Amino acid sequence: MIFKQLHESLSDTYTYLLGCETTGQALLIDPVISMVERDLAKVRQLGLTLAYSVDTHIHADHITGALELKRAVGCKIVTPAFDRLPCTDVPLKENATLQMGSITLKPLHTPGHTDGHFAYFAGDRVFTGDALLIDGCGRTDFQNGDAATLFRSVRDKLFALDDDVLVYPAHDYTGRHVSSIAQEKARNPRLGTAKSLEEFKEIMANLKLAYPKFIDYAVPGNRLCGACPPDLPESLEGYCRHMSASPQG
Amino acid sequence: MIFKQLHESLSDTYTYLLGCETTGQALLIDPVISMVERDLAKVRQLGLTLAYSVDTHIHADHITGALELKRAVGCKIVTPAFDRLPCTDVPLKENATLQMGSITLKPLHTPGHTDGHFAYFAGDRVFTGDALLIDGCGRTDFQNGDAATLFRSVRDKLFALDDDVLVYPAHDYTGRHVSSIAQEKARNPRLGTAKSLEEFKEIMANLKLAYPKFIDYAVPGNRLCGACPPDLPESLEGYCRHMSASPQG
Repeated sequence: MIFKQLHESLSDTYTYLLGCETTGQALLIDPVISMVERDLAKVRQLGLTLAYSVDTHIHADHITGALELKRAVGCKIVTPAFDRLPCTDVPLKENATLQMGSITLKPLHTPGHTDGHFAYFAGDRVFTGDALLIDGCGRTDFQNGDAATLFRSVRDKLFALDDDVLVYPAHDYTGRHVSSIAQEKARNPRLGTAKSLEEFKEIMANLKLAYPKFIDYAVPGNRLCGACPPDLPESLEGYCRHMSASPQG
Repeated sequence: MIFKQLHESLSDTYTYLLGCETTGQALLIDPVISMVERDLAKVRQLGLTLAYSVDTHIHADHITGALELKRAVGCKIVTPAFDRLPCTDVPLKENATLQMGSITLKPLHTPGHTDGHFAYFAGDRVFTGDALLIDGCGRTDFQNGDAATLFRSVRDKLFALDDDVLVYPAHDYTGRHVSSIAQEKARNPRLGTAKSLEEFKEIMANLKLAYPKFIDYAVPGNRLCGACPPDLPESLEGYCRHMSASPQG
């Protein structure tokens, strides 16, 4: 499998490029709208054709590149069926795998950060979205988030994977790139196996996080599979700015 | 490739098991003498046959399990040719790969922690021994160690690998399991690309580390491919204690 981890610095989002050496097809997990050109250039550089863009959930901190990628190269938009987005081409459910050449992407419904959140398991890697971060996890205080639900998602589904499965999160805010299931079980300070549900709920209830500055634009934009808002304040322009030079003008 | 990361807690050593699904052969990188039974049980459990034990260097903090593994199951002992160990079956040099079924292990001479230190590159993983640790590196103040040499090894050989190559170190003292070349380039506080050779030499010259408590037993023991010393003080027994119950009695 061809594999590239790509980084977007404004929201510290990781986008993952998976390519099949046999069919020459590629997919992108959690593409960011401002990085569509970079992503397409990387796909081309590897001699691949983009077949799918795949999102883990309706993001609150960036807008997906799905729609712009589809406009540019005709790839299919893949999102969790749970979210019922009309712009989706391939709605995914648990136990219904997405096959792309020799790559099998297995969706794991992992609600708690959002109710429709999915992780994707492929080979010896799991793309955990915001459900499980390195030494952390996504917040649970909006978009039907729920700490007890996230606890069960991580413990019952992600920690059920083999210890050596590589954990590739949707974000890291300190420059870390990868972890493993064994590492998160042992030392995740919120969700590690030494922590109880009650301890986790207390941690999540006391994070005192600020209201996400981009959420009011990102959520409706992502429900359209990636549309930049017309009324974006100048201070938030970076979240969409590259689109003026996109293949669509 | 079958892959398992195994941990020994006294010296916080990671041993790596690589298995070929086609031939059923396995190799162990940096096995620890006190964990030989655990390692052999893991090989058996996976339905594999141990073909090789491979060491990255002459360790100062633990004794290799190589000789005990050979006595138990007849595997071949692989070490860097540079070290000229008479007990070695397969001396490795740079650019001379070790092939085991579908697995190609590419030796990279990476001196600086010791003069004969090798890292091993296989697929999308590099086993970095003590040359490159997560956010750190091995010390350079004994066994012909040299900071400037280590700097060149890491910068010229390890950082020349693809950004997404997974870094599996010989040790981690805080429970981290894996990193990537991109991560170490960006945030290794000693060897990251923002650091100069002079800065690195200064860091290494001022670590003020204690004399390693096991080095006077480990180095001669490892020069014999894994022999426990007869005169081991009681306080250090854990480094060898499991051997009394080994397959060799």
